[in-house]
Amino acid sequence: MIDGGVVLAVDLGATNLRLALADHSGRILVRRRASTVGVRDPEVVVRMIQEAARELLEEAGLDRGSLRAAGVGSPGVTDVDRGVVIATSYLLGWRDVPLREYLETALGVPAVVDNDVNLAALGEARAGAGRTVDDFVFLAIGTGVGAGVVLNRRLHRGSAWTAGEIGYLLVPGTSESSVARGEPGALEALVGGEGISQRWRQRWSTAQTRVPQCATATEILDAARTGDTAAFETLHAAARVLSYAIYDMALILNCPLFVLGGSVGLHPALRESVVELLAKRDTRVQPRIERSRLGDDAQITGAIYLALDRAEWG
Amino acid sequence: MIDGGVVLAVDLGATNLRLALADHSGRILVRRRASTVGVRDPEVVVRMIQEAARELLEEAGLDRGSLRAAGVGSPGVTDVDRGVVIATSYLLGWRDVPLREYLETALGVPAVVDNDVNLAALGEARAGAGRTVDDFVFLAIGTGVGAGVVLNRRLHRGSAWTAGEIGYLLVPGTSESSVARGEPGALEALVGGEGISQRWRQRWSTAQTRVPQCATATEILDAARTGDTAAFETLHAAARVLSYAIYDMALILNCPLFVLGGSVGLHPALRESVVELLAKRDTRVQPRIERSRLGDDAQITGAIYLALDRAEWG
Repeated sequence: MIDGGVVLAVDLGATNLRLALADHSGRILVRRRASTVGVRDPEVVVRMIQEAARELLEEAGLDRGSLRAAGVGSPGVTDVDRGVVIATSYLLGWRDVPLREYLETALGVPAVVDNDVNLAALGEARAGAGRTVDDFVFLAIGTGVGAGVVLNRRLHRGSAWTAGEIGYLLVPGTSESSVARGEPGALEALVGGEGISQRWRQRWSTAQTRVPQCATATEILDAARTGDTAAFETLHAAARVLSYAIYDMALILNCPLFVLGGSVGLHPALRESVVELLAKRDTRVQPRIERSRLGDDAQITGAIYLALDRAEWG
Repeated sequence: MIDGGVVLAVDLGATNLRLALADHSGRILVRRRASTVGVRDPEVVVRMIQEAARELLEEAGLDRGSLRAAGVGSPGVTDVDRGVVIATSYLLGWRDVPLREYLETALGVPAVVDNDVNLAALGEARAGAGRTVDDFVFLAIGTGVGAGVVLNRRLHRGSAWTAGEIGYLLVPGTSESSVARGEPGALEALVGGEGISQRWRQRWSTAQTRVPQCATATEILDAARTGDTAAFETLHAAARVLSYAIYDMALILNCPLFVLGGSVGLHPALRESVVELLAKRDTRVQPRIERSRLGDDAQITGAIYLALDRAEWG
């Protein structure tokens, strides 16, 4: 199968770069990870990708010509048609970067660029929790909150490539105040990892909890399961607004499945609480809530399928 | 063009039946309306449609063989694939009615059945406010509240045919209490005509307003524009939650347009207030809010296009 060629998948995060070579069936042959801390120049990132691709091909015992296409997930709003990263968060600070063109020049093969959450959703659609349904929403709940919307087995990306920007959703319990750029959105402030730990620091008091003030969201959710009251209140606040967001999306889209991914989204306590809250609502159609099957590999898997769809095989 | 055949479009409301014959370009040739007050039996409704179709063909000077297909909008959850009306509101009280089969038998031509709000959205997509965009949401705000979701120029109907059930949406300002079947949903209670007039009756006091206690939603919105404080408060409560619902849908779907239809949705005061409230929000993409172009004819126009898509021309 390797004779048929391979694709390069790249998951470009704010602080690290993950790469993999996969065969035509989507199976990962080799992979690696590199830090991008302090690296912001897109051309430097592209050179890092070029170099890693060369090394990965060598490691897999393949020559340069085996590479057929590259799929790249970028942490920002991405114009898939033009291959341009329109805007990323402050960490990278990219604006209108023609990433596809850079990559095609550097790698000599067709490339496709998409938003990283969209790619995680695509990964789940093709090889994860979404394989058996036509429509679902993938919720990436890590530092921030975003969603990938899959309808009729295809990504719905929106007219300005921002579909699934659910970090800003307004539901009962979220703040109605306008949010400054760079600050967590209304939903994100209660559900995202950054929002959860920020809120924890502000409300922390030694009288109420044994969890340290500087705890991560995951540590707080862990403590919620052991009966810590203050931690449970934080979990409940997150689960409440997340259950409303899912309820609203289920009404609008009538999709049968929501997949929770990202470091916070994968926490069993969050899913348990959300399922419990949703069950209390009388809905004509109760959506299923599942944790991501692919976990950390959702993005890279989506990048593989994006590249496979683009590759001109044989 | 009439030689090419005609289609029958039917808009089946809870209290009346609207019918039209249209040519292959969608132009309405003849139309009529009949009361269905007191009529609940689906077979009686089908006989009324059969009789009206016969009379309309006669009126248009066409013979029976000119009819090529029928498109019908039903006020309820409708399985378009099977042609079955799964559930309507209490007024009709239908459950699992094989309406398409009944119609095909009665009319002798292929028929298609869909939810009436979906058909209004389809009408706007083909011949109204949605003609120039790929994605938009049509909001039918009359007695109740529902939406038709058009993505990639096609209706998104959902896995259980309930997409767009936005009357139950939860946003800041709506009640979080569970809603009993038959009662207005959380959003509907503040934005729908029935909800607006119900709330008005409950809060009415002669000291605060010159609008009568039994005023309709339209009368209350009219009064809001003339400076009546209590009426303005009612308008503002409706516009506030509606603007949040639109904001949330715009985040999830990133569609550039929302079309307001239905007797309340068409009121200029509602659109004005919603536009004003949305403009205050810092959004990456500000959606356009337009009133329905087709007004009362949105549903019947959608039914025409549904039938045209189904008709075997030539």
